[in-house]
Amino acid sequence: MSIQSVPVQKDLQSARRAAADAWRKELTERGILCINLISSPGAGKTSLLQATARQWAGTVRMAVLVGDIATDRDAQRLAPLVPVRQLTTGGACHLELPLVQTGFGQLTLEELEGLEFLFVENVGNLVCPASHDLGEHMRVVVLSVTEGDDKPGKYPKAFRTSDACVINKIDLLPYVPFSLEAVTTDAHLVRGDLPVLPVSAFKGDGIAQWCDFLRKSRQELVRT
Amino acid sequence: MSIQSVPVQKDLQSARRAAADAWRKELTERGILCINLISSPGAGKTSLLQATARQWAGTVRMAVLVGDIATDRDAQRLAPLVPVRQLTTGGACHLELPLVQTGFGQLTLEELEGLEFLFVENVGNLVCPASHDLGEHMRVVVLSVTEGDDKPGKYPKAFRTSDACVINKIDLLPYVPFSLEAVTTDAHLVRGDLPVLPVSAFKGDGIAQWCDFLRKSRQELVRT
Repeated sequence: MSIQSVPVQKDLQSARRAAADAWRKELTERGILCINLISSPGAGKTSLLQATARQWAGTVRMAVLVGDIATDRDAQRLAPLVPVRQLTTGGACHLELPLVQTGFGQLTLEELEGLEFLFVENVGNLVCPASHDLGEHMRVVVLSVTEGDDKPGKYPKAFRTSDACVINKIDLLPYVPFSLEAVTTDAHLVRGDLPVLPVSAFKGDGIAQWCDFLRKSRQELVRT
Repeated sequence: MSIQSVPVQKDLQSARRAAADAWRKELTERGILCINLISSPGAGKTSLLQATARQWAGTVRMAVLVGDIATDRDAQRLAPLVPVRQLTTGGACHLELPLVQTGFGQLTLEELEGLEFLFVENVGNLVCPASHDLGEHMRVVVLSVTEGDDKPGKYPKAFRTSDACVINKIDLLPYVPFSLEAVTTDAHLVRGDLPVLPVSAFKGDGIAQWCDFLRKSRQELVRT
């Protein structure tokens, strides 16, 4: 009896890629730009979304699907500002597309009406989420200045697979050993064309530029 | 033909547990206390080890095995102070025992002579390393104040499986919304008896207490 190899892994990967592509296409047709936010725990993904929601209040329509291993603390922080659904992985270290789609399916017709931006806040983890396509149009890696300017080279996949890098907590720059120039150089060694956007989600610096960047990205999506 | 279920997963788990127990026993017999340091990227594991090495210079013998996905940046920071070997996972999100043993096997006889503490600095990831026993005597989770005081409940396994929690970067407390009392309460909801040790690896505060804690833990190990 001959033994044949069964390419299960490859089939699974191509099935997942097809599902993510189909989902991306559907969101594009609805005019929704989907952003997958990845970072270490505590880099400030939720704070960035709070600042974005405040900047856009009453003018731009956004919704958030927020991933966590446990608790709905992040959803509670966002709920007063924007439509939000908590995705709880129950232990898993990253989000996968089916859970994202389940969360999206829970948004009401009113929340979906005219929706322009869908943010998916991934589980706080700078490693595993980089390997999972959630059907997003844009992946954004958030790094806070307190984490150190050596991180792009140490966690290359998160930066190589991202379309933009937000450097958060720049209000703490006077108190920590961190160089915006060094982190930009390191990030560009990993991905030469990575836009780097310094912000303070806490104090508001750079939030207008971040929001402009997102609106331009959506305009390009809608135009094509 | 009847189909039988094959409990591969269970066998693998018990084999891994046995290997970790055997390794722990070997280190115990050599009088070496092994500490597995886990945290988010940039919480300050390497800085804590640098501060520990400076505190103990010439008096206590320690060595470090430092895990990273890519680069040997952390090993380079530690090399002037203590014997160190870089463990590069090449993409994997956590360390496993065989790689730790390989690194340990590369220490020279001179470096092993009278060794009292072996630190294993895990990959920066507050999720996956919590599920892997590296044969350590003590797991220590490091949380920096810039990450927020809500993290124990959000990443419960890291805190539930740890034997101590170091709160790092307390020099930044005046500039960030973080309460030592709140984080301690949250940590104790996850593990009621978790020792919480506030430090600033950067400025030196609390390092003497951290070192005392480690020395007492080793005395208990050697006595039993």
